[in-house]
Amino acid sequence: PRGMVHLVGAGPGAADLLTLRALRLLGEADVIVHDRLGTEAVLEMARRDAERIFVGKARANHCMKQEDINALLIRLAHEGRRVVRLKGGDPLVFGRGGEEAEALAAAGIPCEVVPGVTAALACAAGAGIPLTHRDAARAVTFVTGHRRDGGVDVRGLVQPGQTLAIYMGISTLAPLRDGLVAEGMAPTMPAAVIERGGTPQQRVLRGTLDSIARDAPGWVTGGPALLLVGEAVGRGAQGWLQAA
Amino acid sequence: PRGMVHLVGAGPGAADLLTLRALRLLGEADVIVHDRLGTEAVLEMARRDAERIFVGKARANHCMKQEDINALLIRLAHEGRRVVRLKGGDPLVFGRGGEEAEALAAAGIPCEVVPGVTAALACAAGAGIPLTHRDAARAVTFVTGHRRDGGVDVRGLVQPGQTLAIYMGISTLAPLRDGLVAEGMAPTMPAAVIERGGTPQQRVLRGTLDSIARDAPGWVTGGPALLLVGEAVGRGAQGWLQAA
Repeated sequence: PRGMVHLVGAGPGAADLLTLRALRLLGEADVIVHDRLGTEAVLEMARRDAERIFVGKARANHCMKQEDINALLIRLAHEGRRVVRLKGGDPLVFGRGGEEAEALAAAGIPCEVVPGVTAALACAAGAGIPLTHRDAARAVTFVTGHRRDGGVDVRGLVQPGQTLAIYMGISTLAPLRDGLVAEGMAPTMPAAVIERGGTPQQRVLRGTLDSIARDAPGWVTGGPALLLVGEAVGRGAQGWLQAA
Repeated sequence: PRGMVHLVGAGPGAADLLTLRALRLLGEADVIVHDRLGTEAVLEMARRDAERIFVGKARANHCMKQEDINALLIRLAHEGRRVVRLKGGDPLVFGRGGEEAEALAAAGIPCEVVPGVTAALACAAGAGIPLTHRDAARAVTFVTGHRRDGGVDVRGLVQPGQTLAIYMGISTLAPLRDGLVAEGMAPTMPAAVIERGGTPQQRVLRGTLDSIARDAPGWVTGGPALLLVGEAVGRGAQGWLQAA
């Protein structure tokens, strides 16, 4: 039999934010290669007898190099297995799915990508914060606070009428705040940090860019966090979800 | 009984790109308020005896004003009904979900937002195009080619190391191309248009900003279209999906 790899977005970590297509593929997989601690609830829904291979990447703790993950996926497919490569959120947004797909293509392995609910969407929905708004945001930008060199690059990303969703480490919050202000953002810009967004353990801290930079480090409890900042973020602060 | 409104993302139009949470809510709803032609496959999965109310918005053809939709949702909830407001893609990305939620909050109606797979994620996955890439894109920006005044506003949005996903009308493609070039984008920048992305009818046209602006108007067949443009778009063109 010819093997194949499905790069599958697991969504933000809540089992019921998985797509039906992802659920079906998890039920058909011979082997599931996963890396995020946030995907436990989703893994519960996989075929019981599917092999599970943990390849690391719990935050800073990268257990396996990307090149080794690529080689593993290729080997499993060459063995004729149906492989699900499960990735938190969406495979093509900060998931290195593109790199894995390139490696598979170079090796002649069939590959299908299944999109997922990326963290920014889940955080916005869970916190009641619009990412775009006819009056306040014509665009939304997703950017990562994690770079290869450990820095934060927000050059050119501060623009009027735009929401920024920053997939971040809290450790990078201070230089991130400084970078945004250096690019022209007001320190009073509405902002929110969402921890474990989209899961039952979600927590939300609202404020301004400055208050968040000051308060968030002492507020987070170690879960994955996302920063939303921009005029539209203030629209959500009026509190629709408080009504629920 | 107290009514409630769920603002539910339907995803890009393929029934199996719905989330499990959305599926459950569609099964519980008393009434479903929907607007996109692209949500038929998803509507098939709703409770058979749920009332369906079509409120328009098939492209330029807005059948009901936003204010009237807001009032309808409030009235249905006041009647004690469980309302699903079904929106294509994600409710908070160009879906005016934020405005509906604000109106519901102002009226004291409980509201929950369920995120969905927004078109850019489905198009990227379906076409095999990474939105971010460690070597080519640190950020991805979603922007709409539809504005209140009918124009296109890309000021400040052309930045190195960024993918643009433009939720567009093909009618706006020529001024959009001119706007991007005026902002400094190379006419040779890799680009792709994806029509009916994420559905079985998906079509993909690859090229450069200039070739797409020239060829897409004669190529599209009337479905919803999305433009991806940026260095990372060229990474996908090597063709992983051709291997599948």
